[in-house]
Amino acid sequence: MALLVQKYGGTSLAGARRIKRIARKISGKRAEGYDLVVVASAMGHTTDRLIHLARSITPNPDERELASLLSTGEIVSCSLLAMALKALGVPAVSLTGGQAGIRTEHFYTGARIREINPSRILRELSEGKVVIVAGFQGVTEDMDVTTLGRGGSDVTAVALAARLKAERCEIYTDVEGVYTADPRIVPEARRIPEISYEEMLELAVQGAKVMHPRAVELGWIYNIPIVVASSFVEAPGTLIRGEAGMELVKKVRGIAHDLDVAKVTVLGVPDRPGIAAAIFEPLAEANINVDTIVQNVSIDGTTDLTFTVSRDDLRKALGVIEEVVPKIGARGHIHRSDLGKVSIVGAGMQSAPGYAATMFRTLAEEGINIELITTSEIRITCIVHESQVERAVRALHRAFALEREE
Amino acid sequence: MALLVQKYGGTSLAGARRIKRIARKISGKRAEGYDLVVVASAMGHTTDRLIHLARSITPNPDERELASLLSTGEIVSCSLLAMALKALGVPAVSLTGGQAGIRTEHFYTGARIREINPSRILRELSEGKVVIVAGFQGVTEDMDVTTLGRGGSDVTAVALAARLKAERCEIYTDVEGVYTADPRIVPEARRIPEISYEEMLELAVQGAKVMHPRAVELGWIYNIPIVVASSFVEAPGTLIRGEAGMELVKKVRGIAHDLDVAKVTVLGVPDRPGIAAAIFEPLAEANINVDTIVQNVSIDGTTDLTFTVSRDDLRKALGVIEEVVPKIGARGHIHRSDLGKVSIVGAGMQSAPGYAATMFRTLAEEGINIELITTSEIRITCIVHESQVERAVRALHRAFALEREE
Repeated sequence: MALLVQKYGGTSLAGARRIKRIARKISGKRAEGYDLVVVASAMGHTTDRLIHLARSITPNPDERELASLLSTGEIVSCSLLAMALKALGVPAVSLTGGQAGIRTEHFYTGARIREINPSRILRELSEGKVVIVAGFQGVTEDMDVTTLGRGGSDVTAVALAARLKAERCEIYTDVEGVYTADPRIVPEARRIPEISYEEMLELAVQGAKVMHPRAVELGWIYNIPIVVASSFVEAPGTLIRGEAGMELVKKVRGIAHDLDVAKVTVLGVPDRPGIAAAIFEPLAEANINVDTIVQNVSIDGTTDLTFTVSRDDLRKALGVIEEVVPKIGARGHIHRSDLGKVSIVGAGMQSAPGYAATMFRTLAEEGINIELITTSEIRITCIVHESQVERAVRALHRAFALEREE
Repeated sequence: MALLVQKYGGTSLAGARRIKRIARKISGKRAEGYDLVVVASAMGHTTDRLIHLARSITPNPDERELASLLSTGEIVSCSLLAMALKALGVPAVSLTGGQAGIRTEHFYTGARIREINPSRILRELSEGKVVIVAGFQGVTEDMDVTTLGRGGSDVTAVALAARLKAERCEIYTDVEGVYTADPRIVPEARRIPEISYEEMLELAVQGAKVMHPRAVELGWIYNIPIVVASSFVEAPGTLIRGEAGMELVKKVRGIAHDLDVAKVTVLGVPDRPGIAAAIFEPLAEANINVDTIVQNVSIDGTTDLTFTVSRDDLRKALGVIEEVVPKIGARGHIHRSDLGKVSIVGAGMQSAPGYAATMFRTLAEEGINIELITTSEIRITCIVHESQVERAVRALHRAFALEREE
């Protein structure tokens, strides 16, 4: 039988009524003849509630204990979903990340999956059960619980789909798919029916919240078709797969934005080999995800080096940088945390340099100052003041006429 | 260093403020030079809340999934307690039942501990950490989560104390120790400073809620001194140990009562060997805890056989009995669920038959009808209508003058 991996987000599972609805949905899919592995997130705002509880104990909760605490959110929703399925007469079993054989690196937050031992899942599937797996979590070799970072349930789902060679991975969420821009900001934004892994990856990395970038990356590496669709309405959603859209005339596929950007600039960095490594290796060791890096040209043997991180990571990053600055003989550092970014993404962009010009002119006409620019082959990103991000998204959506059918 | 096992109940851990208080208490004990293993229950009413959540999905939740769901309550409180300790600068680590090596039978609810592999706990202790263990839970060989039944955190604590050869096991709860009767019913009830395992076991089995009977039993078997004390006030509590009180003049040590009694009578049971086994083996296989069993003398080759169970188990018990009745050729069965029981317990009672007479006369003077009587060497129990239990407790406390110092 063909195997599907489905993932249901927290909003889809907020409350008994919704859990029972999802159980009926799963039961219907199973009746179509599929084997099913279902990844569940924590119900509604459970994770936020648990973080709040931890912070009421101590402002800086220990990471090992926090991972153990947060992992309970997914165990609860998985148990309830399995109960709901069994109450419908559908054989089902819930598994924690550890029981499902998900082994990760030895980071308690933001850990990456090292390997999946699928023997338990395969045994349960062979007994005809729907296997419900707790998203967002795994275990170390020592059986200590780790978490994959926010949005990690997407990663769990795609990783399981890859390991189990599923036909596809379906991500059910509270939006109807991937849009040309956030519909809350741009009312005329359109659902994108099909998009390539690369384009989706850029959109996700640059702030499109619909899917976790690491999940897209995994899908790309293992070539697992991913469908992002609403768990509330029956609609086709967005199909993410191989070469989709590479041949399309329209070059800009979508606009991503992110309001969670902090910037750190290391001033007066001596311009010699090994300096960048001396800065970014300790950041990586502290498991800080550095986003954009910009290094200006060297003047009188020193340069300024700027990088961005999420605001959550800023304090940790500053701690690292304060140690690094004297070691490498830099002059000092400054930071800002009131920034956002806006990106245009499209697979055909590298062959049409006019897009960058259109983007910069559009922002200029809106009076928006650009703090930093970075580009990839299929993306241009501008970092601007957070208060100007939404206006930038709307203006760019108009400028590239994304509301029109492709 | 001497090792202590401490257990903190749910009321002691209800809310961040109380968890931080308990962390300071633990920190103080550690400063006295003890190695500490701490067993934590779920915070406040967490377990009830989770059961309610499960019942909102389905009236009869699957037991495997329910065990997995309920186990999260203790994981949450253990993580928070470990965080609170680390925030005080005390090295600590929280462990789930599975991580702590607690292996149980393959029942999902009310499972008994089969063995404890203490290697992880010993390793953490040797690194100087306070080890926080989730009470009430264990795992099967398959790493499926099981629960030890209500009050099972006491069992976890005493079992760990036995396995780790602790100096003693301290049970911290919301009362100041073991009393001659429930102080909410008998205001003049007195704290018992010291009591034997056997007496405590009878009190616990007969309804004294202060400690789980299986925990007392384990303490007795492995000869672990147990202290029951308040987590809110500094007071000596009650010491449960070997031969305490055996030589005391006063024979009745305390009065236990229980409002949760249901009675099943199998009518017209053929009086031949093997019949009792035919009734009670299937009840045991269904993991139903049968309390009192009374069989009347045989009249015309048949007899009536009555047993009591907790009300929670009544439905399951009736299901079993309905199958058994035709198999053994009994005439039928009846049941009642509006009963309670009251017991007097004391190690010297068997040598002084006057106690039974005093008990029955006291109840008669109160106009209380006795439904069933059972006795052990150190206990007499009367089953009466639930509405008369409290009056019976007060009258018996007076009749045996338990308010007076021993």
